[in-house]
Amino acid sequence: MTIRYPNGKKYVPVQQLETGRKKTNPSFSNRGKTLEDELNDTNEYYLSNNIAVIHKKPVPIQVVNVKYPARSAAVITEAYFRSPSTTDYNGVWNGKYIDFEAKETKNRTSFPLQNIHEHQVEHMRKVSEQNGITFLLVKFTVLDRYFVVPYEYFEKKWERMIEGGRKSITLSEIEEMSIEIEARYNPRLDYLSALKKLQNNFN
Amino acid sequence: MTIRYPNGKKYVPVQQLETGRKKTNPSFSNRGKTLEDELNDTNEYYLSNNIAVIHKKPVPIQVVNVKYPARSAAVITEAYFRSPSTTDYNGVWNGKYIDFEAKETKNRTSFPLQNIHEHQVEHMRKVSEQNGITFLLVKFTVLDRYFVVPYEYFEKKWERMIEGGRKSITLSEIEEMSIEIEARYNPRLDYLSALKKLQNNFN
Repeated sequence: MTIRYPNGKKYVPVQQLETGRKKTNPSFSNRGKTLEDELNDTNEYYLSNNIAVIHKKPVPIQVVNVKYPARSAAVITEAYFRSPSTTDYNGVWNGKYIDFEAKETKNRTSFPLQNIHEHQVEHMRKVSEQNGITFLLVKFTVLDRYFVVPYEYFEKKWERMIEGGRKSITLSEIEEMSIEIEARYNPRLDYLSALKKLQNNFN
Repeated sequence: MTIRYPNGKKYVPVQQLETGRKKTNPSFSNRGKTLEDELNDTNEYYLSNNIAVIHKKPVPIQVVNVKYPARSAAVITEAYFRSPSTTDYNGVWNGKYIDFEAKETKNRTSFPLQNIHEHQVEHMRKVSEQNGITFLLVKFTVLDRYFVVPYEYFEKKWERMIEGGRKSITLSEIEEMSIEIEARYNPRLDYLSALKKLQNNFN
């Protein structure tokens, strides 16, 4: 299956983003950072401080044509974005398997469930059954608020939708059942500390 | 960093392989299967039998140009293969983090270490420090033999090379310190059972 880039957004090559970032005024350096940038910074912090090894998976791309010019790198001349069959982030934290999907919404009052693919939910369910730690990391961009939403809670709201209920999770529902993360300097989004709080709450 | 496809092999699109496979005589269906095919089959078996959730990561590709034709999927018109910074496979098995790299060699007497990128070794070291389970899965294609080589053992041979020693691990060294897997019908390569044996040996 080939798709437009997930969520209909246009693809922005990483290098382009990085170049753009270097040119901006440092005092505005967190303005306009995408959630992906923030998580890359966080994961880099975890990695270099030996806290966890968590990476974003590459975007799945179906390669159709490749040219092999003499004496230079292979060039892909035709390829398509594929729909991801898993979540974007996974890795290991003190022996434990961590697996999550990160999503931004411009909405101020609820998180629309159409942001999540059905096979991603299926993947998270299977991870949960294997006793992996799985969750959504949701950013309300306009409110500048971030939440770790445990899969077990998200699943209930997904099933509510399947049964004909509302197609989103309200902000107040999220406030009630999630751990909020304060964005900081370093690590930018300390979601592992949020997971510790969740484990304390539920154990 | 852009590269020729890892190990200088030409890229064969997955669909092409799959189409080719369907046309072959079923009695020869295991002939010519790549290690990647065999592991995909194995992981599919683990997934559908609720044994583990382990996936191959997408090949990392740097996208440079994308066209957006009206009413059809976005087409990537220029992109390059990137060098992987992690291993190819990871996932969760009964709460435990699994992470490995799979490599084939046509060599009959040793496994050349040039098959592995230095940053992949660094990644495996960090996973090992986080108490993840990490290993190499090596196939000697001519001999039709498969081994699970624990990272902790592989690391010693890697360091031997760094210190100026031989640039490969001999087959007899592998036989001594690894668990051999017999290829079967289903699951094709039962590396999780091999891991169980390893844990029993070392505990």
